[in-house]
Amino acid sequence: MVKVGIVGGTGYTGVELLRLLAQHPQARVEVITSRSEAGVRVDEMYPNLRGHYPHLAFSVPDVKTLGACDVVFFATPHGVAHALAGELLAAGTKVIDLSADFRLQDAVEWAKWYGQPHGAPDLLPEAVYGLPEVNREAIKQARLIAVPGCYPTAAQLGLIPLLESGLADASTLIADCKSGVSGAGRGASVGSLFSEAGESMKAYGVKGHRHLPEIRQGLRRAAGGEVGLTFVPHLTPMIRGIHATLYATVVDRSVDLQALYEQRYANEPFVDVMPAGSHPETRSVRGANVCRIAVHRPQDGDLVVVLSVIDNLVKGASGQALQNMNILFDLDERLGLAHAALLP
Amino acid sequence: MVKVGIVGGTGYTGVELLRLLAQHPQARVEVITSRSEAGVRVDEMYPNLRGHYPHLAFSVPDVKTLGACDVVFFATPHGVAHALAGELLAAGTKVIDLSADFRLQDAVEWAKWYGQPHGAPDLLPEAVYGLPEVNREAIKQARLIAVPGCYPTAAQLGLIPLLESGLADASTLIADCKSGVSGAGRGASVGSLFSEAGESMKAYGVKGHRHLPEIRQGLRRAAGGEVGLTFVPHLTPMIRGIHATLYATVVDRSVDLQALYEQRYANEPFVDVMPAGSHPETRSVRGANVCRIAVHRPQDGDLVVVLSVIDNLVKGASGQALQNMNILFDLDERLGLAHAALLP
Amino acid sequence: MVKVGIVGGTGYTGVELLRLLAQHPQARVEVITSRSEAGVRVDEMYPNLRGHYPHLAFSVPDVKTLGACDVVFFATPHGVAHALAGELLAAGTKVIDLSADFRLQDAVEWAKWYGQPHGAPDLLPEAVYGLPEVNREAIKQARLIAVPGCYPTAAQLGLIPLLESGLADASTLIADCKSGVSGAGRGASVGSLFSEAGESMKAYGVKGHRHLPEIRQGLRRAAGGEVGLTFVPHLTPMIRGIHATLYATVVDRSVDLQALYEQRYANEPFVDVMPAGSHPETRSVRGANVCRIAVHRPQDGDLVVVLSVIDNLVKGASGQALQNMNILFDLDERLGLAHAALLP
Amino acid sequence: MVKVGIVGGTGYTGVELLRLLAQHPQARVEVITSRSEAGVRVDEMYPNLRGHYPHLAFSVPDVKTLGACDVVFFATPHGVAHALAGELLAAGTKVIDLSADFRLQDAVEWAKWYGQPHGAPDLLPEAVYGLPEVNREAIKQARLIAVPGCYPTAAQLGLIPLLESGLADASTLIADCKSGVSGAGRGASVGSLFSEAGESMKAYGVKGHRHLPEIRQGLRRAAGGEVGLTFVPHLTPMIRGIHATLYATVVDRSVDLQALYEQRYANEPFVDVMPAGSHPETRSVRGANVCRIAVHRPQDGDLVVVLSVIDNLVKGASGQALQNMNILFDLDERLGLAHAALLP
Repeated sequence: MVKVGIVGGTGYTGVELLRLLAQHPQARVEVITSRSEAGVRVDEMYPNLRGHYPHLAFSVPDVKTLGACDVVFFATPHGVAHALAGELLAAGTKVIDLSADFRLQDAVEWAKWYGQPHGAPDLLPEAVYGLPEVNREAIKQARLIAVPGCYPTAAQLGLIPLLESGLADASTLIADCKSGVSGAGRGASVGSLFSEAGESMKAYGVKGHRHLPEIRQGLRRAAGGEVGLTFVPHLTPMIRGIHATLYATVVDRSVDLQALYEQRYANEPFVDVMPAGSHPETRSVRGANVCRIAVHRPQDGDLVVVLSVIDNLVKGASGQALQNMNILFDLDERLGLAHAALLP
Repeated sequence: MVKVGIVGGTGYTGVELLRLLAQHPQARVEVITSRSEAGVRVDEMYPNLRGHYPHLAFSVPDVKTLGACDVVFFATPHGVAHALAGELLAAGTKVIDLSADFRLQDAVEWAKWYGQPHGAPDLLPEAVYGLPEVNREAIKQARLIAVPGCYPTAAQLGLIPLLESGLADASTLIADCKSGVSGAGRGASVGSLFSEAGESMKAYGVKGHRHLPEIRQGLRRAAGGEVGLTFVPHLTPMIRGIHATLYATVVDRSVDLQALYEQRYANEPFVDVMPAGSHPETRSVRGANVCRIAVHRPQDGDLVVVLSVIDNLVKGASGQALQNMNILFDLDERLGLAHAALLP
Repeated sequence: MVKVGIVGGTGYTGVELLRLLAQHPQARVEVITSRSEAGVRVDEMYPNLRGHYPHLAFSVPDVKTLGACDVVFFATPHGVAHALAGELLAAGTKVIDLSADFRLQDAVEWAKWYGQPHGAPDLLPEAVYGLPEVNREAIKQARLIAVPGCYPTAAQLGLIPLLESGLADASTLIADCKSGVSGAGRGASVGSLFSEAGESMKAYGVKGHRHLPEIRQGLRRAAGGEVGLTFVPHLTPMIRGIHATLYATVVDRSVDLQALYEQRYANEPFVDVMPAGSHPETRSVRGANVCRIAVHRPQDGDLVVVLSVIDNLVKGASGQALQNMNILFDLDERLGLAHAALLP
Repeated sequence: MVKVGIVGGTGYTGVELLRLLAQHPQARVEVITSRSEAGVRVDEMYPNLRGHYPHLAFSVPDVKTLGACDVVFFATPHGVAHALAGELLAAGTKVIDLSADFRLQDAVEWAKWYGQPHGAPDLLPEAVYGLPEVNREAIKQARLIAVPGCYPTAAQLGLIPLLESGLADASTLIADCKSGVSGAGRGASVGSLFSEAGESMKAYGVKGHRHLPEIRQGLRRAAGGEVGLTFVPHLTPMIRGIHATLYATVVDRSVDLQALYEQRYANEPFVDVMPAGSHPETRSVRGANVCRIAVHRPQDGDLVVVLSVIDNLVKGASGQALQNMNILFDLDERLGLAHAALLP
């Protein structure tokens, strides 16, 4: 039984971790922290959890208690894990960070995009980027895992078969991505109000979004060199879901793209390459740890259109974090993650 | 391992049965029928099931195949179970009917509300109304179970503690109920279009709705006599969820209603009496087989306001059907139904 | 040309006033104030207004500038109009207050529900409750108008024909009301987030809501005596709209309710009594200054069910405010308010 | 006063025409036809119109009655206008067709995309493509106007400044477009149900969509030569709105794109080039006849991202049709179309 701690459990990735862990047969949540809600029962804040964690309440973060866990998840704003991760690692506790703190390998680039100095650059060399479809072996050995962002998960899984195989022109990639509003978190902000985000669609961050360098870093690895990427995120009037529509120019039209994708992900439990001609819907992954992908080449031209959908809170955050935990502790990778999506 | 058949699996209660049964450790779907979709794989129609039923396809209904199952669920429009249930029972197969075919004990009243003669009045005497909180013992012995409707489940669970205890004036009950659009099913109809049902709220069927006699029948049993009920259903712009707001006049203001409700449901695994002063949200039961209830007596007056929420497709249909199956086959009642609701 | 000032124009009732006034041929917005957004152009904050107010920007509230207007609308949180109204009246400016500051005639009751002393009790005697269907003559002569709340408008218009005629038992009234999320305003709050309020329904304020005393006051006037009212508001996943489902027991079943309602509102430009058997939808009034009403007596019993729908931001706030202005300045009551609702 | 006829008025573009025409001071609807709803009052079908068309009912289409109108709008499925337009033109009636019947200049291409022979190829030479921003002069002289489709309007208005100026590589254009569900019309179809289209996002028609040749035709005109276009439409969980995200590679980075767009549309009453850095929201045009555009060049690279939003039922259909009518009859182009969008 893996003893689990969660730092910062009041946001959406926190409650989603609790929902998933409630079904996990070999993990038990020992402690969950929140400064602002210390003393409040988790099911008081999140009534969907009533009956699942009858005795669990938020507590003030404490390295000693957290350090007694086998693994600690950070479901915190950026910067928090910087401060605490080192102490926990020193205590022999594994760290799985859902924030952006250890995703970028370059502390200078991190500082540029997040507007503050990196708080733990010494830990960067050992941080493993927790995309199992790319780094499964490294994850097994890791002490510190950076769970990928939601957009980066959908975009990378959709593009890496093309880049790893050298089939795409890596200099003209486009990721036109649509996200549900829960991606903006549970913080009170005008832009995320029902009356502001409902019945409307808009792009945002076209000038530059923090997930851009993260996606670029992953694609560089896949391409084995520099990439040119335009990333346009859009806010969509739904709660959960990311739909990435990815555009790449192929350098060889003769390749069977469907076969390429199917082979690349043949052994992946959580990537589903759909039949040729499919249009995956985000609802087909709602609540589930799956990325569904379809590959198109319209009018038999040079431009490939890849459709990649995930639930931003599951495969885009808490589910993927749990998948990492399963790998890290040598458990069946599907534990706690095998349920079907909620449709309709 | 319980061998399961499903008749009419293309609608929302059908796919929801499949979603829930996919996690059930002691049941296996052997056959699922649909005349219109015969030959189509279930995961072709419902991509959320990809990976869960790799070999299951819809087939033409056939009594022989169905009769080889231990239990057959009917997820059909009304009238279909009338025609087939008898044959299956004769073959020794249990029948759990999610349609309205065997909910009303009076065939004449059924004919009046459904506009056609009852097709199997001889089976009515043995049909058990599958509300476990009322009929658990009878369900254990049943061959034929009529799963309650969605509105009737929410309304009855909310009102029966008051009526069983004789605390409410049974002649002036009001059920103001709000349902998500999935309650109208997956049939193509203008009124259920996104552009018609979205961003709007309306009452419907105020003159008389088919669930009225069903609720009244259940409340009569609880009250031990006639009841007067006004039932006003409303269409709400959400996919899943029923919120029943129930009004009853108490005959004795001195009773501790909170305690009454808590005691009535103390041993019920799927009824959650929330703390005094609560306002349950339908999202707190999304995807879960739970009915959450809160009891209020505003301004300390005579009028009790009970708030009762369910997911119409789970506790209001397929989850409750599975709960009945668990009871019927002497399994842990929670099997396949223990997961937390999806929030947000 | 009526010179118009708006205090506190950054919220939803403010932008809705601007939207409606943009089409008004005999009114011109001279000044709009906001401390927090002073200097910002209104169309920078509300791009739907681009092209309509090319030169209008928010300014710091200033009695001199406001006092140069013929009329000032307050679209502010409660308490603000208390402080400013008197000075404006002294300057000869009419005041139309969309907040709750002057709705309750009793300063003590106001203080009880709003948790602070009433700031201008001396003005209460002359404040006119701006429900034109009840107070049109008084409005014509008013200096200070309190625009009714959204729930109170829908509930009163639905119930007063029954009460004025003495046909209903005034002691057992129920108002089960459903509101879109914009009713909660544009303030950043967790409960109004898309991911919190979307795909869910809940009651709130069952213990007691600030609109309860306001509705009760209006119904008392109509009934000519005390009333017993239970008011249960619900949050509904739509942006605009209120659906009031009203329950009353009739003391005489022989009366033709349809005729009663049609006669009561025969000369009202903004109350639409729909044909018998109708179920009004909130979308049928989206963006329009109309209250649509249908009257039912299910199963020919004693209980009358009245369905009453408005757009909470129009007939429930800014449209009604404008209707009051038209009456006050002896203009055609329909000016700026004659457009059809937006459907779908 | 322009005498107006509408053929096929039961769909969303029909009711939207009625909504807009209700405010038009110089047009009067004389006849509206529908075979299926003949005899039904328009406000019985569309209660938002109650009070606006007290005497108007659907009638069986009749060339004589329609021919007595000055102009007839076709709000019909494709193929209907083919059959009737000629007769009306012969009767001296102008025709404004909202369907696709006369949008493609090439009858063979039309037949290929619409799966049936073109029914009136002889009329094609005189059909004017009703995009006022391109064809205003021709519209003034036209007898037969083909109103552009919704996607084509958003995409063309967003791209033509780049193409007309020769600034973009016309061979690698991408239009990633997101549409509200009302774009699919009011026909009962499973895919447009609230429970299917809600809380989900998907692409569709990636292989080829009927608006592709229409957009390509318009872009070819702007570019003065062949264009390469990839068009990916997406279904978005909102009722109204199109958000086109357009990608083009510039051949000269030194040009001031903001100035280019502002100059191109300086005199256009219904195209709003937003300030640099803007992200237009579809709700900022809800119910209004406006296209709002913002131009970005992320990371100062070669790729231009143009964001273009319209209301698919207004500037994407009925509003644009009315704009054409105003031009055709030498009226102020803004008549009936000057109101602000509904926000929130």
